[in-house]
Amino acid sequence: MTRICNFSAGPSALPEDVLHEIKDELLDYAHTGMSIMEVSHRSSIYRDVIDETEASLRRLIGIPSSYRVLFLQGGASLQFAAIPLNLMRGKRAAYVLSGLFSDKAQREASRYGTVEIVGSSEDTAFDRIPDLGQIDQRISADGGFDYLYICQNNTVYGTMFDVLPTCRNTPLVADVSSCFLSAPHEIERYGLIFAGAQKNAGPAGTTIVIVREDLIETGPACADICPSYMDYRLQAHKGSMFNTPNTFGIYACGKVFSWIERTGGLEAMERRNRAKADLLYRALDESALFHGTADPGSRSITNVTFRTESSELDEAFIEFARLRGIEGLKGHRAIGGLRASLYNAIDLASVNTLVACLHEFEASKRSSMRS
Amino acid sequence: MTRICNFSAGPSALPEDVLHEIKDELLDYAHTGMSIMEVSHRSSIYRDVIDETEASLRRLIGIPSSYRVLFLQGGASLQFAAIPLNLMRGKRAAYVLSGLFSDKAQREASRYGTVEIVGSSEDTAFDRIPDLGQIDQRISADGGFDYLYICQNNTVYGTMFDVLPTCRNTPLVADVSSCFLSAPHEIERYGLIFAGAQKNAGPAGTTIVIVREDLIETGPACADICPSYMDYRLQAHKGSMFNTPNTFGIYACGKVFSWIERTGGLEAMERRNRAKADLLYRALDESALFHGTADPGSRSITNVTFRTESSELDEAFIEFARLRGIEGLKGHRAIGGLRASLYNAIDLASVNTLVACLHEFEASKRSSMRS
Repeated sequence: MTRICNFSAGPSALPEDVLHEIKDELLDYAHTGMSIMEVSHRSSIYRDVIDETEASLRRLIGIPSSYRVLFLQGGASLQFAAIPLNLMRGKRAAYVLSGLFSDKAQREASRYGTVEIVGSSEDTAFDRIPDLGQIDQRISADGGFDYLYICQNNTVYGTMFDVLPTCRNTPLVADVSSCFLSAPHEIERYGLIFAGAQKNAGPAGTTIVIVREDLIETGPACADICPSYMDYRLQAHKGSMFNTPNTFGIYACGKVFSWIERTGGLEAMERRNRAKADLLYRALDESALFHGTADPGSRSITNVTFRTESSELDEAFIEFARLRGIEGLKGHRAIGGLRASLYNAIDLASVNTLVACLHEFEASKRSSMRS
Repeated sequence: MTRICNFSAGPSALPEDVLHEIKDELLDYAHTGMSIMEVSHRSSIYRDVIDETEASLRRLIGIPSSYRVLFLQGGASLQFAAIPLNLMRGKRAAYVLSGLFSDKAQREASRYGTVEIVGSSEDTAFDRIPDLGQIDQRISADGGFDYLYICQNNTVYGTMFDVLPTCRNTPLVADVSSCFLSAPHEIERYGLIFAGAQKNAGPAGTTIVIVREDLIETGPACADICPSYMDYRLQAHKGSMFNTPNTFGIYACGKVFSWIERTGGLEAMERRNRAKADLLYRALDESALFHGTADPGSRSITNVTFRTESSELDEAFIEFARLRGIEGLKGHRAIGGLRASLYNAIDLASVNTLVACLHEFEASKRSSMRS
């Protein structure tokens, strides 16, 4: 079996060690005579799995006891509604528009209250993170927002907040789906972060929410219409077992957390991720054919977006790479182009393979132009 | 490795063949060089997986083209809200109260409109299915309900609707979580059925909704507050890919559907399930120590609830069985007692093992009373 280089934006590559562990115990989890998929979520066997998964995540990030960790279903999109349903007590929230998913989030929130856009990079086609100074000013001048919402890493456009907004007393809510566990998180700076697992945390089907307890202890802001499943207080009270959770998904996330712990933790992940991103951006900056699409000051260390001069050439490169065992380079369907996602499970060797492929393709184009 | 006899109510036993298939291709799905967990849901590889999974389910049940099939997340509990949010156009629905989950469902629905209980077996502690004649009369006399809701098989109390209510023009909505694929479904009799996968369909984390298209084609009844993720029309339009679905869970369900198809389909499942249930009920009826708790006319062929004269003896039996490789016999925490769930993956041999264990325990108690 040859494993390919998988640069998909998510679902994406998982650590090979984790896949081997899952495989080895697939029919017999911890000598129980059952697959983990067959174990009752109410059993002590499963209780140990979810408890250790949460404990591992708490150690990794350094989550204070004043924050609750929830393992939910429905993806980030269900959180786009859950956040206003739970937190929009004053019916007014501030959103930063930095791409496709923050736009989806603000549209969803606007059903449940007033949304004010306090920063946007729409005028430059989301090629950068909106000006932080402006956002800080807006928030410090107006203390009446229930929260400030950002999408911290924009998977589609390849940008990220390298510095967080200063929020004073306004809770910061961040969609960290594609940068979760790619570097340390200063959790005390947030009111709530959430992430779909299918990038750095595990297989698709689990959404992790980390929320400051005081924000949820009085129950949902829109208690009359909030579906019970989406009630953060209830889910926290039930330890994410209000109903049957995605037992296999949570188990697999636990395996990934444990892999990150034993390979150096989040500092090590960040070092590796920055080295991978630097390597690829340098190759793009030096290329006459390929160019990165994000503004250099806003570049994501996770999702590297780039393109050639034409969509035909982009397509040709995708095929060229595929023949060399490299997959997942197609840009998001909303904007086209090319994208390489450098999640934790991607090693430096894979990025070297990609860079070599970029060079080879460029050389082949040069020689075909000459001939 | 010794596989145990797993009578859990869900998550529960999966067919061993399915587990072997998943294991064999865990690191390399269909020679792609990726685990199925690593494959992008937007790729043609995954498109084929979800398309074939739906096609297999359609063949199994014989689902007409006028019905849509959705693979969602959040469990049955999220559907308890999604159903009224989508279907309660006249803000009035009829519910039959036959146990714990129909009660949860009606409570959730009552946030979004008026719920009328048109049948209940609460007065006999849910030991039976409420009188069908009464329900039929209520529904035929009152055409103003948006739908009639039943929980078709009551996992906690061990009862099931062997005959469906006659609904005339009122759409029948049924939670079939624990009887899904245990026998043929006359799908045309329903407006909507839904099931958490973690009984007969696959691992926890996938919820299957089958809905008549005309009920959803104008969008959600409560369009102003319905979270987009829960909008049936939108999910149908996007082929369950409004956002990243539980890709592994759906894949595993496909493996189970295919296993049912090649082992005889739903008629064969029903024959096997009735034989297993008959064997166990007969043993309980003949026992002086154990007795079934459901009214004989309402007995579920899936979840067999029983008990001894005391909770101490129930506990002793659970331990006795555990030492003999039998797990999952504890009754639901809401009512205690004992329960054996005979899902499709449980073979007759396992039920024979359980029956032998019942006999052995009873004999040991008799001899200890004599001595």
